[in-house]
Amino acid sequence: MDYKQSGVDIDAGHEVVRRIKALARGTFTPGVLSEIGSFGGLFRLGARGHRDLVLVSSADGVGTKLRVAFMSGIHGTVGVDLVNHCVNDILVQGAQPLFFLDYLATGRLDPDVAVQIVEGLARACRENGCALLGGETAEMPGFYGDGEYDVAGFIVGSVERDRLIDGRRIAPGDMLISLPSSGLHTNGYSLARTIVFERLRLGVHDHVPELGMTVAEALLAPHRSYLPVVRPLLETTLVKGMAHITGGGVTDNLPRVLPEGTDAIVQLGSWDVPPIFRWLERAGAVPQEDMLRTFNMGLGLILVVAPGDADDVIGAVRGSGESGARVIGTIAAAAEGHAPAVRYEA
Amino acid sequence: MDYKQSGVDIDAGHEVVRRIKALARGTFTPGVLSEIGSFGGLFRLGARGHRDLVLVSSADGVGTKLRVAFMSGIHGTVGVDLVNHCVNDILVQGAQPLFFLDYLATGRLDPDVAVQIVEGLARACRENGCALLGGETAEMPGFYGDGEYDVAGFIVGSVERDRLIDGRRIAPGDMLISLPSSGLHTNGYSLARTIVFERLRLGVHDHVPELGMTVAEALLAPHRSYLPVVRPLLETTLVKGMAHITGGGVTDNLPRVLPEGTDAIVQLGSWDVPPIFRWLERAGAVPQEDMLRTFNMGLGLILVVAPGDADDVIGAVRGSGESGARVIGTIAAAAEGHAPAVRYEA
Repeated sequence: MDYKQSGVDIDAGHEVVRRIKALARGTFTPGVLSEIGSFGGLFRLGARGHRDLVLVSSADGVGTKLRVAFMSGIHGTVGVDLVNHCVNDILVQGAQPLFFLDYLATGRLDPDVAVQIVEGLARACRENGCALLGGETAEMPGFYGDGEYDVAGFIVGSVERDRLIDGRRIAPGDMLISLPSSGLHTNGYSLARTIVFERLRLGVHDHVPELGMTVAEALLAPHRSYLPVVRPLLETTLVKGMAHITGGGVTDNLPRVLPEGTDAIVQLGSWDVPPIFRWLERAGAVPQEDMLRTFNMGLGLILVVAPGDADDVIGAVRGSGESGARVIGTIAAAAEGHAPAVRYEA
Repeated sequence: MDYKQSGVDIDAGHEVVRRIKALARGTFTPGVLSEIGSFGGLFRLGARGHRDLVLVSSADGVGTKLRVAFMSGIHGTVGVDLVNHCVNDILVQGAQPLFFLDYLATGRLDPDVAVQIVEGLARACRENGCALLGGETAEMPGFYGDGEYDVAGFIVGSVERDRLIDGRRIAPGDMLISLPSSGLHTNGYSLARTIVFERLRLGVHDHVPELGMTVAEALLAPHRSYLPVVRPLLETTLVKGMAHITGGGVTDNLPRVLPEGTDAIVQLGSWDVPPIFRWLERAGAVPQEDMLRTFNMGLGLILVVAPGDADDVIGAVRGSGESGARVIGTIAAAAEGHAPAVRYEA
């Protein structure tokens, strides 16, 4: 009895690692000291004088959006979703990415699928100026279904302490500016899949007239990175707070950056809800409250700025190529001791 | 249709997050700036003058050792395995841990199991002086079997560049010193489970006379951290290279730190192979070559030192409470252009 018989093919693993190394090498930034394959990935911060550096780190997965990838056999967007989700999670605190690591677990490693996934990771890392510093590819026989896998990402970025964005300066009267999402991003897929595949009984390759595309195209639209659009604002102090709208929607994510004694007032109808959300809401007969607590509803990132700065901020993101910024509400005073919340107004 | 019906219970998730936050808070070191729950975890490196700092990072899982946890209902050691594995992976490059994040994915979240896992993570983080800075708890209905989950860990540590341990100074004549493992650690479980549960048809609670303990006790023995024992050596330049013996055994891991033109000569019989490895070898009729390329065989960490420093190194680790260090071999010259390898001698 040897290891291969028990379900782990070490040589196939080595071949995947060789191909992954080549992809990762294409993402290396000047800080990277190590080749993939050493025990830990090395990133040189170097001597940074007397600056007060803060590392910002986040871990994420892709969730059950993966199941749409399995159903359609399209694995090239999974890595993009994962990296961009992580990039946005540290961006909202003012951090720019330094490096990323992944964890990819399968039952039996399909080298082509693994390479497709890492190609997506590497492409998104390059686009965000982030080194793919390492990762773990785990073959766990009997753990995942045939052709299935899970993938997690881990990002480390940095920000000078006096440039940290933490919402502390947010005050009543401030304005909420949204940047459009590129689809469901990576949240709400358990509900979306139930509606699309169980209630509507559609297949991934079916065309959806309301959307003008197939189910797979609609549901696999990659999670976008807001770094290119927001980066110029990180050099300013214009942004008081930022929320990445992930699981829990605006309802659960926006309050995470609000200080005590404030609420967010969001004006329904102040932005264009993309057709996919209207379609899911109607087909699933989902109450609006649940839609707002499950999906991003077209709002991928929300910035909180002083009223006098709103035009400058909208102008800055337009200068970075994003014309979809909208004022969607304001900050209001709330009772002391009350946990910050979102109030929707029609 | 709302989110709970589709299989995701947001409120149960919030309750787990609340309990996890309390556990994580107990691990916080002075560098931690953020509460768990902000988008990214914040770790303040601060102003470190003109020192040349290198971040060392690694991602790992627990592999199919998890299946033994599922079978026995014991989830408290999983987190210890994960943290200590990660700590050792960056320790071999001379780094001490700063912070750790986890990714925990389940089909349906069992709050008690999740808390048991995080208790293990938090305990091991505290023991290693490492902050549990954040993580992701993903509920993915239909993705994992009932009562099953996967967990991945990500660690970031730091080392001054001139204290990096990278094997570059290793030369023929150097000595190999091993530190004992505490069991299988987290590798070789696909083979071990096949032997124990399929070939021997044992149950997890069966007593194994050869080992003087139950199957669960033997197979769930926690992966130990070598940080407490090795830490004093990090202040010296005595250690030229270190290998953490994980998947692939000594055969695959020791060469990862050897420079070109060298081989490692390992003397079989120069250390005590713990009973569990002898038992698996015999019960599975596993060729010795496969044993050495699958299991750590009792060698959890291997240090490479100059011949004149071996006594000092063994004395230093004994001073830290580890009396099991053994000289197990030497470094030999090999042909130029030949990839470093391990040669076993009887």
